[in-house]
Amino acid sequence: MNDADDDFPFTNRSEPGEVGLVEPRDFITTEPFTFENGLQIPGFTQRFETYGRLNATRDNAILICHALSGDHHCAGIHSLNDRKPGWWNNLIGPGKAVDTNRFFVLCANVLGGCQGSSGPSSTNLGTGRPYGLAFPFVTIRDMVRAQKRWLDDLGIRSLYAVIGGSMGGMQVLQFGIEYPGFVKRMLAMATTARESAQAIAFNEVGRQAIMQDPEWNRGDYPKGGGPRVGLAIARMMAHITYLSDASMDRKFGRRQVKDRAATPVAAGTPPPSEEHGGTATAFDVQFEVESYLRYQGQSFINRFDANTYLYITRAIDHFDLAAAYGSLEQAFAPVEAETLVVGFTSDWLFPPEQNRTIAEALLRAGKRASYAELATDLGHDSFLLESPQLYDLVRGFLRP
Amino acid sequence: MNDADDDFPFTNRSEPGEVGLVEPRDFITTEPFTFENGLQIPGFTQRFETYGRLNATRDNAILICHALSGDHHCAGIHSLNDRKPGWWNNLIGPGKAVDTNRFFVLCANVLGGCQGSSGPSSTNLGTGRPYGLAFPFVTIRDMVRAQKRWLDDLGIRSLYAVIGGSMGGMQVLQFGIEYPGFVKRMLAMATTARESAQAIAFNEVGRQAIMQDPEWNRGDYPKGGGPRVGLAIARMMAHITYLSDASMDRKFGRRQVKDRAATPVAAGTPPPSEEHGGTATAFDVQFEVESYLRYQGQSFINRFDANTYLYITRAIDHFDLAAAYGSLEQAFAPVEAETLVVGFTSDWLFPPEQNRTIAEALLRAGKRASYAELATDLGHDSFLLESPQLYDLVRGFLRP
Repeated sequence: MNDADDDFPFTNRSEPGEVGLVEPRDFITTEPFTFENGLQIPGFTQRFETYGRLNATRDNAILICHALSGDHHCAGIHSLNDRKPGWWNNLIGPGKAVDTNRFFVLCANVLGGCQGSSGPSSTNLGTGRPYGLAFPFVTIRDMVRAQKRWLDDLGIRSLYAVIGGSMGGMQVLQFGIEYPGFVKRMLAMATTARESAQAIAFNEVGRQAIMQDPEWNRGDYPKGGGPRVGLAIARMMAHITYLSDASMDRKFGRRQVKDRAATPVAAGTPPPSEEHGGTATAFDVQFEVESYLRYQGQSFINRFDANTYLYITRAIDHFDLAAAYGSLEQAFAPVEAETLVVGFTSDWLFPPEQNRTIAEALLRAGKRASYAELATDLGHDSFLLESPQLYDLVRGFLRP
Repeated sequence: MNDADDDFPFTNRSEPGEVGLVEPRDFITTEPFTFENGLQIPGFTQRFETYGRLNATRDNAILICHALSGDHHCAGIHSLNDRKPGWWNNLIGPGKAVDTNRFFVLCANVLGGCQGSSGPSSTNLGTGRPYGLAFPFVTIRDMVRAQKRWLDDLGIRSLYAVIGGSMGGMQVLQFGIEYPGFVKRMLAMATTARESAQAIAFNEVGRQAIMQDPEWNRGDYPKGGGPRVGLAIARMMAHITYLSDASMDRKFGRRQVKDRAATPVAAGTPPPSEEHGGTATAFDVQFEVESYLRYQGQSFINRFDANTYLYITRAIDHFDLAAAYGSLEQAFAPVEAETLVVGFTSDWLFPPEQNRTIAEALLRAGKRASYAELATDLGHDSFLLESPQLYDLVRGFLRP
């Protein structure tokens, strides 16, 4: 299914362990889609990538679900000049934990996203302009239902596994609940069955940073424009919650930067030191951790849409399986899949307890489920980072 | 010393346990003050309050040091209509842990502050306008040195104790180092000897929210004006770091608010729902925790100056005793005071380990020091909240 390989004879396709060059594709439907809240759009696009090949019995498909700021590009590279491969390239590839020699791996940008799938930055065919806030409110269940349409269209009859971390883990659980016969294995990491008050609070501050930016203009801004400053600030703050005290101290400590006029927080905003002497520089970048965060904010605004940030954080806030189904046990009642939940000790956004709770509720509901806890000090992002222990768990869980 | 009592015969002065009506006073000096960075101002004001009476031997004075968003008003009320007493009123008063029947308690707004002491919002006599960024960069040591001037002026010859939490704890340590013979006891809580990368990171995001607000105007704004939106966002985010996951879940959980058009994030900003129907309301206040945070942001901007927020967070960022003196043991070498450090298990801004480290270094330096750890789930703010265990510790430590 890696179409791109055929056009590029000099790819690293045969290099062991690497997916190599990949090309995103679009699933486009003109069948209306009705959201959980009853609103409808006349059709939608789902941008996706696939790695490996669907076997003749069509039972080797693995769906990867991405997190808040992720997208469909989870493995391989788009061009030979790409400096960075897809976001889960360390996990997915020939011979890797999610082995593309064995599995047909799929990943789509979620509904409401901004990387090619329909969302608030897509053109509203009724007006010829971006939807903005006219795009219907999206839930995790809407994301999952949209992906099912696309998988049906591809002729996928069952999923060997659904795998995801963070918001991806929410989709994993929702998939298993919504399409029990379709999903054989659920592998959810660094996630929760219920967004906590603290996590909602952080999301809310990020949304306020965006919505209070005058450039937000109530969601009505041209493509490429919008509240860049607010989005950068939201990202900077969120990024802290993805790391840990220990990892930040190890990575940056209190080291100071040499060039204080370094990265401005958002393109077009000159560093505040230029017109002032002495004191003003006290508020420029001084510590490496500041420079790092500003870089994170800056690079995010070049690839992400502010309205999508609002929509997706709100979808996450509203995720609460116990409330939606009466109890967590009732939510999991229909599940047929075997489940592995993985928590990371240093994850304080979706702490280990919240992950363990999922496995325990599945067990109480009479399902096959287990929980693994990995000792890391890399925070929430642990699930994305290199970890032979995680690879072993995934490999073991995916064994037939 | 409670001057106000004389004018108000109907106060609750005699009510056991309450400081009652108090009035702030100003220490004004026209002697120049030289900051750590070499810059000078021609004099300064320090607003303060006192409770209880200085005894004849002048050895019963206790200095209270406030945290980032605190001020000199730590006990009592300013008028009979006051809905809230001073910020540490539960700890300080006749018969309370810091007993004003025994002790003469003093507290001043720090240098760089905005509650009456000289800082960036004070009038620069040279220009007739607020200093703004022309105010010299302030350090914790500058704050302490300014307070010493005021204490000298009052005729205080020694401090029975210096007490403070968070940034107040930093001042406590600096006081003991800077004026060894003057300080008899140090009581520092929920603090650190060295601001961590994560804590710097949170401060930086808050500063960016302020400095990227167009109303900040590089620190040049009229009194009462300025970056209200940016300051509210900074406060909302910081407020999350003062609480804990558990306390937020207990206090708010996922409860939703009834009136969704509730509190806007900053005065003058209408809630974004008014011009939109359906989807826009998805981004209004929905959860109680959001409403609470917006209220926190809103009330903060009515009492706090944005430039002071920049100055004081930067002072905190730069606090690193080990770096300033070569090592923590060397920093504490001159200390003569007996020290108690108190950490709180749920404090993730200045975690228990960072507090314990202080006591351990003092012990290694041959000083009398102990460490107590209180099990709470209220986060960093634990030191401010009602806690009989904390009161007992404080009472015991202050025993002659």
